[in-house]
Amino acid sequence: MFEDKSQELTPISKLGEFGLIKHLTEHFPLENSTSELGVGDDAAIINPDGKKVVVTTDVLAEGVHFNLGYVPLKHLGYKAVVVNLSDVAAMNAVPTQILVSLAVSNRFPVEALEELYAGIQLACKHYKVDLIGGDTTSSNAGLVMSITAIGLENEDEIVKRSGAKPNDLLVVSGDLGGAYLGLQILEREHSVFLSNPNMQPEMEGYDYILERQLKPEARTDVKNTLKELGIKPTSMIDISDGLASEVLHLSDQSKVGFRVYEEKIPLDNLTMSTAEELNLNPAMAALNGGEDYELLFTIAPEDFDKIVGHPDFSIIGHATELNDGNHLIARGSNQMIPLTAQGWDAFLNKE
Amino acid sequence: MFEDKSQELTPISKLGEFGLIKHLTEHFPLENSTSELGVGDDAAIINPDGKKVVVTTDVLAEGVHFNLGYVPLKHLGYKAVVVNLSDVAAMNAVPTQILVSLAVSNRFPVEALEELYAGIQLACKHYKVDLIGGDTTSSNAGLVMSITAIGLENEDEIVKRSGAKPNDLLVVSGDLGGAYLGLQILEREHSVFLSNPNMQPEMEGYDYILERQLKPEARTDVKNTLKELGIKPTSMIDISDGLASEVLHLSDQSKVGFRVYEEKIPLDNLTMSTAEELNLNPAMAALNGGEDYELLFTIAPEDFDKIVGHPDFSIIGHATELNDGNHLIARGSNQMIPLTAQGWDAFLNKE
Repeated sequence: MFEDKSQELTPISKLGEFGLIKHLTEHFPLENSTSELGVGDDAAIINPDGKKVVVTTDVLAEGVHFNLGYVPLKHLGYKAVVVNLSDVAAMNAVPTQILVSLAVSNRFPVEALEELYAGIQLACKHYKVDLIGGDTTSSNAGLVMSITAIGLENEDEIVKRSGAKPNDLLVVSGDLGGAYLGLQILEREHSVFLSNPNMQPEMEGYDYILERQLKPEARTDVKNTLKELGIKPTSMIDISDGLASEVLHLSDQSKVGFRVYEEKIPLDNLTMSTAEELNLNPAMAALNGGEDYELLFTIAPEDFDKIVGHPDFSIIGHATELNDGNHLIARGSNQMIPLTAQGWDAFLNKE
Repeated sequence: MFEDKSQELTPISKLGEFGLIKHLTEHFPLENSTSELGVGDDAAIINPDGKKVVVTTDVLAEGVHFNLGYVPLKHLGYKAVVVNLSDVAAMNAVPTQILVSLAVSNRFPVEALEELYAGIQLACKHYKVDLIGGDTTSSNAGLVMSITAIGLENEDEIVKRSGAKPNDLLVVSGDLGGAYLGLQILEREHSVFLSNPNMQPEMEGYDYILERQLKPEARTDVKNTLKELGIKPTSMIDISDGLASEVLHLSDQSKVGFRVYEEKIPLDNLTMSTAEELNLNPAMAALNGGEDYELLFTIAPEDFDKIVGHPDFSIIGHATELNDGNHLIARGSNQMIPLTAQGWDAFLNKE
């Protein structure tokens, strides 16, 4: 886990539970005026200042969501925060606070947790959110992190999954499939390493997709961009499990169907070339791969002119009546393929 | 885990992640008007209605905080909620919502999680809190639960750990040490069972202390009782790690010392007789045992008359100048023993 093997490592028991929490959280000043009381009491205090509170939680388990064989702890800390902030952004709300819960085996020295918290701190700084609480305990096996993220927003700004209407346009930010292909490269190089530890991993040239997997960003910027364009989405969700799965969630909650045009799905050049190299269909990576943390949303048809051609957004389809179901319109044909959720499922993938 | 071994058990993978969450949370209606949106979107929405938000999180790990060999899953679910609500009560706030995160190995069938959620639901009903979100994932080993609890309260009602002044009276609700002795009985009978599975566990007559351990309650009632007495605590904390540890937290945050009188520590008769049977000092169980989930608080000296003799509260000491340190005054003598935190520590206990 550490390059300098000569370094003296500190067992967690040397600090104890309270000492550890104090040690790990002492470099997290409260920056938001809404954070009234942080770590150190029975509970934290937030001043919502007239706004609604949105709150979400996500759990990441070693061996399921990450492999410490190729995921640096600092990246893991950063990503664990990002996946939660992405959920707040998907409500069109501004994330303001997080709480971090950790169950960690004694095989991790304090220095490992410092790395993890360095990543958490970097994310807090980048996204201007405050760490206001948490809990750290030992576990019998591995590392389990649970983060709760809180956002504050005026009622009329919040967007749910449930507001899409037939004929609304379906829009996605950024590009898709990269995180999944980055994971394929990491897993390929990790197996090579396991079979021959002297081999150097071949990561060069894959920077963008590796970053999409290891250090994704939450699209907290989309809210402001849409505001500048004069658009309020009618429904919104973040892409954590794959485009297909998220479209079905919007369909389910909004009681509409969707048509998604394969040729409109935004793919980065590196995503496409890596998919070709690995003999994978890049559109399938976008539909079922997950972990892209882009935002998928619907807008009223009359907002078309405001968003068309914007470099950050792609119109990939539209909503229909619920009875019409959810379909992918295959590239270069009019073939309608029923959309099914084959996305990432923590229980199915690990059988 | 189940009495009827002939019952058909359902693997989690049969439902998948979304199916599982839907299945487990479908019997949790939102009862509080402040719960605007619950499970099913990217985040939940709370309407704080002009109040401050208090928020706390606790993680419970199998083999560290509980042993499924003698802790029924339904009790575990109930207790996991209670320990978080206790933290909200310790802020003198009213708990309103919870989020539940679960990492669970595939060795648990859906029916086991149903038991766990039945306990969570019972707690939600009893304490009038709404389950508004969560995340469920597989883990490579065991069960880790992380619960986040939210409470709403007017600013002038909230009590922190930091408000105690010299000469304030130190008060505790209920009685202490029972949960620790209950655990000793459970562990004794579990070892007997492991050495001879045909032996019947001898649990009779230990009801109160077993309940203190297996099904503790959060003292959310204390807030109202104190209000009726016309008392607002100057500082408050809940007793999760043992009286000694909590006194030191109040000392640390309020910048005062404390004197605790051993003979004033409230002990139940069964706690005392069981301690004698097991050759343990019951005051030590109260000081270092933990998990009693009573509230420890300070009140202004002029409130003495309002609380003295109240059956629910015991005045066990008083605050001093910080320089005087923290001491236990031993029973039947004036001997001052420095208070040290030997309380429950998830990292020290499991080395």
